[in-house]
Amino acid sequence: MNFLEKLAQASKNNRSLLCVGLDPDPELMPPGTGVFQFNRAIINATADLVCAYKPNIAFYESMGSEGLDILKRTREYIPADVPVIVDAKRGDIGNTARAYAWGLFDYFNFDATTVSPYLGFDSMEPFIQYHDRCVFVLCRTSNAGAADFQSLSFEVDGNRKKLFEIVAEKVSEWNTHGNLGLVVGATYPEELKLLRQRYPDMPLLIPGVGAQGGELLQVVRYGVDTGRQRTIINSSRQILYDSKGEDFAQAARQVALELRDRINSLL
Amino acid sequence: MNFLEKLAQASKNNRSLLCVGLDPDPELMPPGTGVFQFNRAIINATADLVCAYKPNIAFYESMGSEGLDILKRTREYIPADVPVIVDAKRGDIGNTARAYAWGLFDYFNFDATTVSPYLGFDSMEPFIQYHDRCVFVLCRTSNAGAADFQSLSFEVDGNRKKLFEIVAEKVSEWNTHGNLGLVVGATYPEELKLLRQRYPDMPLLIPGVGAQGGELLQVVRYGVDTGRQRTIINSSRQILYDSKGEDFAQAARQVALELRDRINSLL
Repeated sequence: MNFLEKLAQASKNNRSLLCVGLDPDPELMPPGTGVFQFNRAIINATADLVCAYKPNIAFYESMGSEGLDILKRTREYIPADVPVIVDAKRGDIGNTARAYAWGLFDYFNFDATTVSPYLGFDSMEPFIQYHDRCVFVLCRTSNAGAADFQSLSFEVDGNRKKLFEIVAEKVSEWNTHGNLGLVVGATYPEELKLLRQRYPDMPLLIPGVGAQGGELLQVVRYGVDTGRQRTIINSSRQILYDSKGEDFAQAARQVALELRDRINSLL
Repeated sequence: MNFLEKLAQASKNNRSLLCVGLDPDPELMPPGTGVFQFNRAIINATADLVCAYKPNIAFYESMGSEGLDILKRTREYIPADVPVIVDAKRGDIGNTARAYAWGLFDYFNFDATTVSPYLGFDSMEPFIQYHDRCVFVLCRTSNAGAADFQSLSFEVDGNRKKLFEIVAEKVSEWNTHGNLGLVVGATYPEELKLLRQRYPDMPLLIPGVGAQGGELLQVVRYGVDTGRQRTIINSSRQILYDSKGEDFAQAARQVALELRDRINSLL
């Protein structure tokens, strides 16, 4: 089963477009809780509510080798029928890009990853060669600084286009194996609308609802695909850190449940 | 001592603009040699010939937690007076970018890192806040696909500029603490020339000589700064894998010595 099939299945089984970001931040976690213990509790509490999980590797890498061990154990702990997207935003060249792809897809066995487009096609190719996985290319990110470069506008064939539009066009062009997607922040609804209109069936990974302020109504109205199984709405902090007490997992379940149901009610 | 002072000192002590890339690839290494053992031998053989070392984290990450342990031990093994640039090409947002910066600068204690510009200023800010370190922003990379986006040309204030030129301009503008540099591939000499002319004192990290085909004569002629201590010419595979036999470290020393001296003779 390839990534898109697995995603569709999980999305259908759990009636969910919600992805939980597994971003363990020791400063926000309940005191005395180990990182793996925290992740395990969150997964136990939410595995029937999500279409995917998305650990951001930054939080694990910052703990050094121990962190990568926890990441691997976390990945292995997630039920086999729920796809796992590693948020790595990698982008490097030649043999280095191959090393990253091998690490993320073979060593860690993630179902999908995020990559950065700045280095061009050959930096993504080693990832794309894994036809059963999915590669989400950063297109329009959710942060304020996104505009610095992504919104630069230039003239191509007599039309004015922004950089993120060109990135999307290229990704669509490079998508010969049907395993590419885009990352589009919930905080830029007009851009999300435009991209979804142009690419009605492309998998979109949409971070930025909740803590980052993206409006759920607009995300659902503008971002959902025609088949309703290729839209991944990610929330991390809002779910993980609703409670800092012993009931943190139960609280996370409650927030995830409400978020999943609110998304469904807006469909 | 901040990064630029440390770089200038190492460059002066070793009369060198050469940086050795510590990219251990098990397929190219002498059979039966452990990765840390390999790095240690390379460092022992070249520490008096370089202005810096540059491990690319991809090769370590692909070995999982063991790899990050080796990276940490390698970093600690490098003599304190030689700066170490981790080639990580990170680029993420908010608390995630802070986690990366903490990991690379606090946990691993690297002197400098590379970052990707696609996400804009706020993705780099957590790194820039370490005033004694250096942040090399990808500008014009050495790979063939670099042109896909980096060479797109935009109209800004009535002038046509390429994306990599705009990145360089922004980086120069954001360089209020004097701790930013640019990554410019040796394989694009005209772009290197243009950037060096515009930013005569900016630290440039120049990969791509040797295995990637960049011409040393042009790199030295076009790339060296006015003070001659802010140019870092990196070579990895050409030095590391000259011999696959027991004499690999000695062979690496010979190649590094010749490369350092050839650079100096072209100054």
